[in-house]
Amino acid sequence: MSCGSCKMTIPKIKRECVILKKLINKPEDVEQQMIAGIIKAHSQYVSRIDGFNVLIRANKKQGKVALVSGGGSGHEPSHGGFVGEGMLDAAVCGAIFTSPTPDQVYEAIKAVDAGAGVLLIIKNYTGDVLNFEMAAEMAEADGIKVLNVVVNDDVAVMDSLWTTGRRGVAGTVLVHKIAGAAAEAGATLEEVQAIANKVIANVRTMGMALTACTVPAAGKPGFDLTDTEMEMGIGIHGEPGTYRSAIKTADDITNEMMDKILTDMPLGSSDEVVVLVNGFGGTPVMELYVINNRVYDILVEKGVKIYHTMVGDYMTSIEMAGCSITVLKLDAEMKKFFDAKANTIALQV
Amino acid sequence: MSCGSCKMTIPKIKRECVILKKLINKPEDVEQQMIAGIIKAHSQYVSRIDGFNVLIRANKKQGKVALVSGGGSGHEPSHGGFVGEGMLDAAVCGAIFTSPTPDQVYEAIKAVDAGAGVLLIIKNYTGDVLNFEMAAEMAEADGIKVLNVVVNDDVAVMDSLWTTGRRGVAGTVLVHKIAGAAAEAGATLEEVQAIANKVIANVRTMGMALTACTVPAAGKPGFDLTDTEMEMGIGIHGEPGTYRSAIKTADDITNEMMDKILTDMPLGSSDEVVVLVNGFGGTPVMELYVINNRVYDILVEKGVKIYHTMVGDYMTSIEMAGCSITVLKLDAEMKKFFDAKANTIALQV
Repeated sequence: MSCGSCKMTIPKIKRECVILKKLINKPEDVEQQMIAGIIKAHSQYVSRIDGFNVLIRANKKQGKVALVSGGGSGHEPSHGGFVGEGMLDAAVCGAIFTSPTPDQVYEAIKAVDAGAGVLLIIKNYTGDVLNFEMAAEMAEADGIKVLNVVVNDDVAVMDSLWTTGRRGVAGTVLVHKIAGAAAEAGATLEEVQAIANKVIANVRTMGMALTACTVPAAGKPGFDLTDTEMEMGIGIHGEPGTYRSAIKTADDITNEMMDKILTDMPLGSSDEVVVLVNGFGGTPVMELYVINNRVYDILVEKGVKIYHTMVGDYMTSIEMAGCSITVLKLDAEMKKFFDAKANTIALQV
Repeated sequence: MSCGSCKMTIPKIKRECVILKKLINKPEDVEQQMIAGIIKAHSQYVSRIDGFNVLIRANKKQGKVALVSGGGSGHEPSHGGFVGEGMLDAAVCGAIFTSPTPDQVYEAIKAVDAGAGVLLIIKNYTGDVLNFEMAAEMAEADGIKVLNVVVNDDVAVMDSLWTTGRRGVAGTVLVHKIAGAAAEAGATLEEVQAIANKVIANVRTMGMALTACTVPAAGKPGFDLTDTEMEMGIGIHGEPGTYRSAIKTADDITNEMMDKILTDMPLGSSDEVVVLVNGFGGTPVMELYVINNRVYDILVEKGVKIYHTMVGDYMTSIEMAGCSITVLKLDAEMKKFFDAKANTIALQV
């Protein structure tokens, strides 16, 4: 059923014509057309498994441990943007904000296994964990060795809407980078799993939002924020956070986010870190740098050495305005793999 | 004068407390704090001229033609994100949506001149052209050889709010890339100017917006669009475009934008192009790929060969939702320089 004037399909939840402020055709076609648009832009990096919303590395490398990640769509460039040399071998794309099916993950595992086993990098959402683990069992029945890691870097809340335990958010990109480099360098499946777990043990993220985002098929924002409110500790699907309040200054917001991170993972003058200031999709680059201006000062005041800073949209929530700050405490091994070559759509080292 | 509760300065145009949905401190500090945040994140690429909002390449290369671009801020990552090996030597950052002063540009020219002359890459806005040309005269009085090019890739309108002739928009990034590579390869000032002008002669852009954007110091959106409207042919400062209408589907929007580009620069089966699908700052990556899905089909149906596709935020308008499509018709020389190494914050080849 579609509206004659705007040509958009009418979401079934509302019996009225919903005109969305989005560059889409029909809400139900967004994921397919996005994936088609990615392949058409970047066939040197990725191809698609026929019949499945799974992006795989264009040039498979035999004998290497393969890395599979993914989850609901809506977090672009995660995870398809990180498929390629030195990072992921496959990204499984669920419907927007919806866990991929076990079948999808199973197809990804089969497609990328290159004889050395497959590591699943799962963000900690109950549905993702269940479906990735079910797929692993299916693949193991085929004789493919599969291990997994669960990323839970979000310090905002302990349990939340869709998760038992902490949520997995932007820190996942750093797991992709470092574990991916280890796999590319020839590490065994157990070694790649171990370094991925080391990254997870040393990475913390805290986020906040100024606006909500709209899943196209839902046709309305996932939650409401007034013109003067912000939500601190928000999840990457707009899950409720730590508290809601009047908008504060960028410096006050940054102070609070860094305080939450540094309370959970104290840092001092012997520590060296990677900083990732991540935009959620609707945040101007300008504002991310205003945030970084304060993040840097807070860390430097503590004597922490900032090894590298990334600023931009890495793990988004469709068009949400807001940001997260991720801090990874490095050691020599992580640093080596962080610096190793990566050649993907969204990250080149 | 500032508000006690939100700590934000009250814009002089409104005698009330304006709470902006922005991650900023005071509106008047945004440019300074953004530039400080860029330097703190990326000192391996850029440094700042003391006392001026000018970003210059961290490692100056003697004997090379130097490239200077810039304009008003608010278009990040343009232009500071493109300072570095193989692209720009300096980016001059005016106040948001405001031309840099001649003094700023003059300081940039003096700082980056490495003995082979300086090329100014100016987007076609009357204020920018005047101030860059005035700076060139000042530098020439010092004995520095300065040439310029004016980018006018926007096919939407002929004359507009701040411009006589066509506006310069996202195609400017491709001028940076190709002219920058020529300079890096040792071309003379006249040769770099010639290839920059060849890019300008062969690049076309068309944009549209779903939402307006807010300059922090203004405290309110630059124009109004209702919840169901879009603006076709918009400029990168929200200048009025070709027409305003109800929102259309992504495919219809893309068809219209490509039609405007291809009417101006017909392409056929002997042509090879670079495509840049550019987000304006508030557009989800997902939607840019939905647009690219259709751009690709339109070009392929005409037999045009797509040499390379870029999708992302390259020339933004703060947090505006919307996009532009840029098409560059290549020849062998442009292709060679397009493929050459670039190592900047926002583009790595």
